[in-house]
Amino acid sequence: MLSLQDCQALDRADPLRVLKDQFVCPPGVMYLDGNSLGVMPKATPGRIRQVVEQEWGQGLIRSWNSAGWVDWPAQIGDKVARLVGAGPNELVVTDSTSVNLFKVLSAALAMARHDAPQRDQVLSERSNFPTDLYMAQSLCQQHGMRLVLVDDMALAPALSERVAVLMLTHVNYRTGAMHDMAALNAQAKAKGILTVWDLAHSAGAVEVDLRGSGADFAVGCGYKYLNGGPGAPAFVWVNAQHASRFWQPLSRWWGHERPFAFTPGYVPAQGIARYLCGTPPVISLAALDEGVNTVLAAEPLGGMPALRKKSVALCETFIALVEQCCAGHGLRLVSPRDAAQRGSQLSWCFDTPAPQALAVSQAYAVVQALMARGVVGDFRAGDGASQPDLMRFGFTPLYIGFETVWQAVMHLKAVLDHREWQQPQFQQVQTVT
Amino acid sequence: MLSLQDCQALDRADPLRVLKDQFVCPPGVMYLDGNSLGVMPKATPGRIRQVVEQEWGQGLIRSWNSAGWVDWPAQIGDKVARLVGAGPNELVVTDSTSVNLFKVLSAALAMARHDAPQRDQVLSERSNFPTDLYMAQSLCQQHGMRLVLVDDMALAPALSERVAVLMLTHVNYRTGAMHDMAALNAQAKAKGILTVWDLAHSAGAVEVDLRGSGADFAVGCGYKYLNGGPGAPAFVWVNAQHASRFWQPLSRWWGHERPFAFTPGYVPAQGIARYLCGTPPVISLAALDEGVNTVLAAEPLGGMPALRKKSVALCETFIALVEQCCAGHGLRLVSPRDAAQRGSQLSWCFDTPAPQALAVSQAYAVVQALMARGVVGDFRAGDGASQPDLMRFGFTPLYIGFETVWQAVMHLKAVLDHREWQQPQFQQVQTVT
Repeated sequence: MLSLQDCQALDRADPLRVLKDQFVCPPGVMYLDGNSLGVMPKATPGRIRQVVEQEWGQGLIRSWNSAGWVDWPAQIGDKVARLVGAGPNELVVTDSTSVNLFKVLSAALAMARHDAPQRDQVLSERSNFPTDLYMAQSLCQQHGMRLVLVDDMALAPALSERVAVLMLTHVNYRTGAMHDMAALNAQAKAKGILTVWDLAHSAGAVEVDLRGSGADFAVGCGYKYLNGGPGAPAFVWVNAQHASRFWQPLSRWWGHERPFAFTPGYVPAQGIARYLCGTPPVISLAALDEGVNTVLAAEPLGGMPALRKKSVALCETFIALVEQCCAGHGLRLVSPRDAAQRGSQLSWCFDTPAPQALAVSQAYAVVQALMARGVVGDFRAGDGASQPDLMRFGFTPLYIGFETVWQAVMHLKAVLDHREWQQPQFQQVQTVT
Repeated sequence: MLSLQDCQALDRADPLRVLKDQFVCPPGVMYLDGNSLGVMPKATPGRIRQVVEQEWGQGLIRSWNSAGWVDWPAQIGDKVARLVGAGPNELVVTDSTSVNLFKVLSAALAMARHDAPQRDQVLSERSNFPTDLYMAQSLCQQHGMRLVLVDDMALAPALSERVAVLMLTHVNYRTGAMHDMAALNAQAKAKGILTVWDLAHSAGAVEVDLRGSGADFAVGCGYKYLNGGPGAPAFVWVNAQHASRFWQPLSRWWGHERPFAFTPGYVPAQGIARYLCGTPPVISLAALDEGVNTVLAAEPLGGMPALRKKSVALCETFIALVEQCCAGHGLRLVSPRDAAQRGSQLSWCFDTPAPQALAVSQAYAVVQALMARGVVGDFRAGDGASQPDLMRFGFTPLYIGFETVWQAVMHLKAVLDHREWQQPQFQQVQTVT
């Protein structure tokens, strides 16, 4: 049986606890939603002030050179690279995850059609982030290929000689289930299949070894575990073996060999720079830079392996406390029970259906009731069939401690024990949560 | 002969001069580069502080609802719409101009192939912004079409029954030459050709009437005359007649009918919302909003027609003063002499070649020497053949006055009269200017 004192002792013994001082953590908020939007680093407002008031306000156009704005997509990219097992000059920050996925999937399909024209399938997981599937659907249509969707367990057997590209999200956005990237890369490579990874819920949260595991293409998000701020620029990585081989269709000046020469014909830059497109959003890049710095600050303390170890311990503590304190309310852990098979989040559903009278699902109402108590998680609707409605809690080891986990579970217990979630104010549907 | 006193009198008589108070204008800087990066509005730092420190820092994920972030792409879009003759719900701010051009050109080509499959050409202007041509080149290749480039004067005769799409930049980035949008739209429509306009150098600078002139698609830039900050989000507009007809290939959740329902199949939103793609960059959007507000502030003073009138007067004054004070230095105005045929910028070249000893072109060195005196314009290299090296000066009527024009020309005169541009420090090549 875990007690508050046990959790406090875990915090005292945690060598990473100093990293929390890098963030503004609003008082009274237990923030278990860093998987949707990371917390604001203390350094960010000052950095943005510098960029806006000095570099833009005073330096104006000259700051592209004098403040080095022109180099930021590559420089910040090199920092992100250290977090996902990539090398220098292999990764850039630019555009949104969506746009970057379009670029790499386009390049992968062009490459596959050149090297193996008989392959006509893109393989992905049925429960992949739907918008990744929308993009794949659209590109498959364009290339006369077929998007094949299977369940997680059926992925390996489906890696046939008809598959051109395997496109997966490393950590599932709903369940937190994590693929074995090295194993899938090896199986894909053995069959001549290219791999495209979406690291939205991985970068800064779990160990990723893009180079070592032999991945081909990857994209990821700047505003979740990288703490880059709402709608932060995303990143794109391409295995150095392929980076200069194919064009991506968003061929624009920042991806040109000489961006400011304004030559009439397009000559793509060598390497990852050709995955840049239009003018980079400087203010947002500065915020992303500060966010990435908060993760790199863990390097002297053990880096991503140490962060991962703490993330696992936080999740294990949450599970143990829920099982200990919230039994009898029909809660079921939807995330894999084995820590090695999940990312840095936990998702739960209710096995017993909610009373008919409810305007919303019980999971939704509980998330709202928790929010009113300062525990911020989020709700993800199911499909009314095999996928249940979920309560989702993210555990960012940079700024979440064990005592916070204890408090969050105590609030959950209170919400369930006192049926707080049945109160009418928690039945209001919001646009986004 | 214009005197300093004349220019000061013009300033006193200018009803728009109060608008300059909206901006931070660095002391000693005569900023004639608002066509590259607009000046910072005074309101922007405070607004960004509010978004970063309060809405993100304290509100965290809840601010998507409580601060209304989710509605900003449409709300700011409605404001930009007022500046370019578009209606409400017809325009959104999102992504970069590059990415938006890709979306609209893709949709236009899909539409043309459906409605008129025999058409196999995209027509544009040889001197169009090269990166717009790179994008068209790439999309033509994909659709099995041909990009046909002609000179300005040959555009109208080239509008044949083989042309599917006419893609133009309204105001030329090099020369400032402005197309007659209404006339070209009418000619194109008469031949069944769709029009795609890049308003990068138009929005906030010249009058644009997208709806009234019968345009089909348009994109534009947020960081030039809209003062949205370096790398600000761009905008995209589609004629309401077509907006719901075709998908654009960057089909992602923010363009979905129900973005947060996470349904397995893609169902594009009705109208312009389907041109949204990934998560919008909130901090950059806030800066863009403040920038757009500075242009809307001209509405009670006559709006875009009044701004345009002042812009023309500023340009005419600059031309008159250069001809009066800088004669004999081989300067030639490359922009059209007729104000009705140009935007809000003036470009000049040197007709006599520079001495062989120079490491850079004379136009480059003069721009550098002017910069050292606080006059910020920019340099655009020619092609060594028909296109000469240019000195480019932009005149943003919101914050440029007639006395500033007078001062800038006096500095130009001094740089030329004293051959300051021959000094070695002005021969250093910078990456971007």
